[in-house]
Amino acid sequence: MKADTKGRILYEGAKIVHLMGYHKTGIQEILRAADIPKGSFYFYFKSKEDFGLQLISYYIEKILARGETFLEQKEFSPIQRLRNHFNWLIYQSERQEFKGGCPIGNLSQELGDINEVFREKLDEAFSKLKHLISRFIKEAQAEGEISAELGVMETADLVFSCFQGALIQMKVAKNAHSLDIFDRMLTRII
Amino acid sequence: MKADTKGRILYEGAKIVHLMGYHKTGIQEILRAADIPKGSFYFYFKSKEDFGLQLISYYIEKILARGETFLEQKEFSPIQRLRNHFNWLIYQSERQEFKGGCPIGNLSQELGDINEVFREKLDEAFSKLKHLISRFIKEAQAEGEISAELGVMETADLVFSCFQGALIQMKVAKNAHSLDIFDRMLTRII
Repeated sequence: MKADTKGRILYEGAKIVHLMGYHKTGIQEILRAADIPKGSFYFYFKSKEDFGLQLISYYIEKILARGETFLEQKEFSPIQRLRNHFNWLIYQSERQEFKGGCPIGNLSQELGDINEVFREKLDEAFSKLKHLISRFIKEAQAEGEISAELGVMETADLVFSCFQGALIQMKVAKNAHSLDIFDRMLTRII
Repeated sequence: MKADTKGRILYEGAKIVHLMGYHKTGIQEILRAADIPKGSFYFYFKSKEDFGLQLISYYIEKILARGETFLEQKEFSPIQRLRNHFNWLIYQSERQEFKGGCPIGNLSQELGDINEVFREKLDEAFSKLKHLISRFIKEAQAEGEISAELGVMETADLVFSCFQGALIQMKVAKNAHSLDIFDRMLTRII
């Protein structure tokens, strides 16, 4: 039951922070959404900052777990698997009416310059997401789908940049135009 | 003198909002930095929101004016001119110790989902920046430097996404690693 409470706080908190940002989210709002008393929150989290840091791990674990399932879909070519992964992320954004964008990207914009503890945690989170992308690219090379000459980590970095930027564009355009361009042009990068 | 005062408010305000974000910037801080009384601020700006919206135009005009000078440097090929433009932006970021990133991208993350007036203004700002990039690409096509088959606006969109994403990465990595990859791999996209 205790584990469920913590999970519920993270689940509800994740939705609020995703849309409102870290600073604009009050602990009271999280308590209300998760339907728990204040003491419960502080049982699991030392502070709002501690909550924010654990939230980053929560977001990352969710994305990596989903990425893992796409990596395993051997009925598709590795590059198609990578596109399936991005298309799942794009679909999530569409379902949210193009709000939110990347929770890690948002927190990076908001906290990257002003909180060193968050900055380090976010840098680590970005590395994990890029490592996930690199695994699709490596498989594509192993199966001869793309050139073995391509620098795997550099390419993963560029693909990640493109996707992050397309998500920012989505947030102000409120449509999937830039994400669709990213999807269609992905093979030009890889 | 009046024009100077407004310019100074925008100049000082731009620096603060760039690093702190819109919500965390208080009018008091801007008054202090620009060394003006409160009445002066409200003579030029109806509200903090009005200031924020005019600030977006201020940022855009600065970037477009600089872009124009790079477009005119006919001693370089069009793609090299585009790289020079990005390298100027990267150099600005290095000088700021990799803080700040893109002021328009930051405001998009912060306000794109919660303020419709800002969202529209930012969408328009993104369009102007992408139009600037498209002009370099069109010249490159006209001079035969790149394929005439390439969809100009789509390519500009993708290049813009990549650069925006690389700037987010810069903010958490506090180095130019992803920006350097963007610069080196730009020709793969175009």
